[in-house]
Amino acid sequence: MSALDLLFNPKSVVLVGAAHTEIKFGGVILKNLLRFRGKVFPVNPKYRELMGLQAYPSVQEIPGPVDLAVIIRPAPEVPEILRGLNGKVQCAIIMSSGFAEVGQKVLQDEIKAIGKAIGIRILGPNCMGVFNPRARLDTFFLTQERLRRPRKGNVAILSQSGAILSCLISVLRDSNIGASKVVGYGNAMDIDVSDLNDYLAHDADTDVVVSYIESVGDGRRFIESAKRLSEQKSMIILKAGKGESGQAAAYSHTGRLAGRYEVCHAVLRQFALREAADFDELMDAVKALSYQRPSKGSRVCIITNGGGSGVLAADECMRQGLAVSPLPEDKKERLGQKFPHFFGINNPVDLTAQVMDDEYGITLNVLRDDYDGFLVIALPNVLGITERLGGLMKDFKESSRKPVVLHIAPSGISAKLTARLEKARIPVYPSPERAVRGLRALLDRQ
Amino acid sequence: MSALDLLFNPKSVVLVGAAHTEIKFGGVILKNLLRFRGKVFPVNPKYRELMGLQAYPSVQEIPGPVDLAVIIRPAPEVPEILRGLNGKVQCAIIMSSGFAEVGQKVLQDEIKAIGKAIGIRILGPNCMGVFNPRARLDTFFLTQERLRRPRKGNVAILSQSGAILSCLISVLRDSNIGASKVVGYGNAMDIDVSDLNDYLAHDADTDVVVSYIESVGDGRRFIESAKRLSEQKSMIILKAGKGESGQAAAYSHTGRLAGRYEVCHAVLRQFALREAADFDELMDAVKALSYQRPSKGSRVCIITNGGGSGVLAADECMRQGLAVSPLPEDKKERLGQKFPHFFGINNPVDLTAQVMDDEYGITLNVLRDDYDGFLVIALPNVLGITERLGGLMKDFKESSRKPVVLHIAPSGISAKLTARLEKARIPVYPSPERAVRGLRALLDRQ
Repeated sequence: MSALDLLFNPKSVVLVGAAHTEIKFGGVILKNLLRFRGKVFPVNPKYRELMGLQAYPSVQEIPGPVDLAVIIRPAPEVPEILRGLNGKVQCAIIMSSGFAEVGQKVLQDEIKAIGKAIGIRILGPNCMGVFNPRARLDTFFLTQERLRRPRKGNVAILSQSGAILSCLISVLRDSNIGASKVVGYGNAMDIDVSDLNDYLAHDADTDVVVSYIESVGDGRRFIESAKRLSEQKSMIILKAGKGESGQAAAYSHTGRLAGRYEVCHAVLRQFALREAADFDELMDAVKALSYQRPSKGSRVCIITNGGGSGVLAADECMRQGLAVSPLPEDKKERLGQKFPHFFGINNPVDLTAQVMDDEYGITLNVLRDDYDGFLVIALPNVLGITERLGGLMKDFKESSRKPVVLHIAPSGISAKLTARLEKARIPVYPSPERAVRGLRALLDRQ
Repeated sequence: MSALDLLFNPKSVVLVGAAHTEIKFGGVILKNLLRFRGKVFPVNPKYRELMGLQAYPSVQEIPGPVDLAVIIRPAPEVPEILRGLNGKVQCAIIMSSGFAEVGQKVLQDEIKAIGKAIGIRILGPNCMGVFNPRARLDTFFLTQERLRRPRKGNVAILSQSGAILSCLISVLRDSNIGASKVVGYGNAMDIDVSDLNDYLAHDADTDVVVSYIESVGDGRRFIESAKRLSEQKSMIILKAGKGESGQAAAYSHTGRLAGRYEVCHAVLRQFALREAADFDELMDAVKALSYQRPSKGSRVCIITNGGGSGVLAADECMRQGLAVSPLPEDKKERLGQKFPHFFGINNPVDLTAQVMDDEYGITLNVLRDDYDGFLVIALPNVLGITERLGGLMKDFKESSRKPVVLHIAPSGISAKLTARLEKARIPVYPSPERAVRGLRALLDRQ
């Protein structure tokens, strides 16, 4: 078993700095570890028992080897704790802050050297650690009450920042998206995003990788690992620290230099690595990628019951390099025969406020072979939009096997309809532009 | 009284095309008009009574003059109906579609000529009409069940598109924003956005005007009226039909040419008229403008308990032309004395996951005079963030009288905290970037 296997799928975990109360991070982590399927050994010399588990005064007193150590003691104590893992543990997460990110580069170099000397791979320091829902492994110092965890699913998160990791998790949960592996890797002193890329490239539970990056140590190694990963999985990157202020903030956050964004952006583009412009675009893309498989082509058909919403969607398609190409003449005629004269038989197809559900199904089926992806806009403020639309869309998605996303404005039956569509793995977005950005993640750009 | 006063504040309304059932638009509108504070006269020759009101076979049978006529009969009948308003009515809303937007330019020209001949000002055709919550006037053909109306407030909406109007209304309601006047003006054959701009410039109930525009007839007149309006009120414009596909869609939507977007964009910029890039940016700006007064300056202070969120916010400030300028040295020292060594005393100020509420208050008060606007990021996944933060922020907002917005990720106590903050007129956003865009609406750009 490699060290990264031990990081995600340990059989046993020791928590150095375990506490009896959730007022302390060591108590929150211990409580989260109580759900873990394997063995948990809390270490704290002041207690013989913590949260119902036998506590140990030090790691060396634990009988036999332990797969993973989690350390949440103040930075100055960490070198000594690490040395105490010698011969017992092959992989450790140092969650404690107080290293390079606050100028303590010397202390960080010291623990790096110790790790190397005793043959331990280290995640962190200054990090959130790991959440693997299948193993019920959860090393976060955030309570379940304050941060509900996503269910099992196909999306992996790699985040240099614990804060962004927690925000990504919140949105996953609210968007009916499940997680495969979640990692907050902080200062990336040893195990870094390239190692994690390589691990996830072969992780059977993962289809999509979301990567929040502030800085990368070895740029070439990162690009190579990202390229390998993107050949196996859908990957999308949010690069932060784009300007001077952001770069300064990133430096004081994880003690690493962010580098010039223009260079990073150009390299990602050159290697066809997908990049999101901001947090919301990232999450909109992740939902689409988690629900559906990416496909070839860039021709989009927009079908709407609101003219203005179709115009905004067409504008965004242009900005995103997607083609809103005209309907083929024969299809235009066919739809013209079926529909009332006041429908707009163009692209966008405007079914107007007088639409009935079925007319979406008719349009989709007539145009199925003429486009690469479909954006359906259903404003549920008119009575012709009912929950039946969910079934119609599901049928089309399954028979066409093409990317299809919806924009539904938040009104009327939108909540029920959205739940039904997302259960069928059709992503729903609250604005036309966000729906286009979701669809773009599933298509090629021009 | 001007025709536009009659449009927004009529004492009596006649509905031509009233129906007995909500399956028909004429029934939905009649039901919505039942809430109106003035008199309502339904016209339908087939009924003597509709929804408890006396029905009339024609407008001419109604005793005395009527302030406003609402017409929802098929397009070919409209010329005759208009002629029948002669001498009875000075202002009419033609909601019916089937005019220039479907190629029936001749029919539209005919009704325009009739309106002029008999001295009636006309809103529409192909439009949603008017909602004025203070008069309880509501001519929309959308049911209250499917589209809940916003409460009274200070935001006016002018929308060429009925669909976008309904989406704007949904978001207003969900964002705790109230409406002053809402108008869907459709084909803008007679009363157009310039007329409405001039009316709203002197409307005491309106502080903010949201304008969704696809096309403008007389560009110079529009810019002049928009300039006058923006001297009196906060105004923000979403211009749709930016690319070829969007322009084609806009043409088939309201029968008007959208014109080159680059020209429009340059002119708006030249006259310092505020423009939103898309629907979400529009709504994020409107919330900020509805809650707080715009202010001078562009120096932003970011205070966060999550490092990565601060980096993303700083990146977005750069893109939006806002300055994340360094803390003054003396203030840096003062905060350094008050705070633990692991806090990041820069801009962004990083209070870390170990923050307590009070430390936001301390930071804000120390830096109050050094910045023009404040972005506070409070990730409520840690126990140090409590509902008390709402009170602290309210005190700061009231004493500083400077723009202040929050980003709160959706987790833990976020819903309660958001409700409390927005009651105090402090806008809350679900991502760092959206919060920056909200704040930008309240500040000057560099």
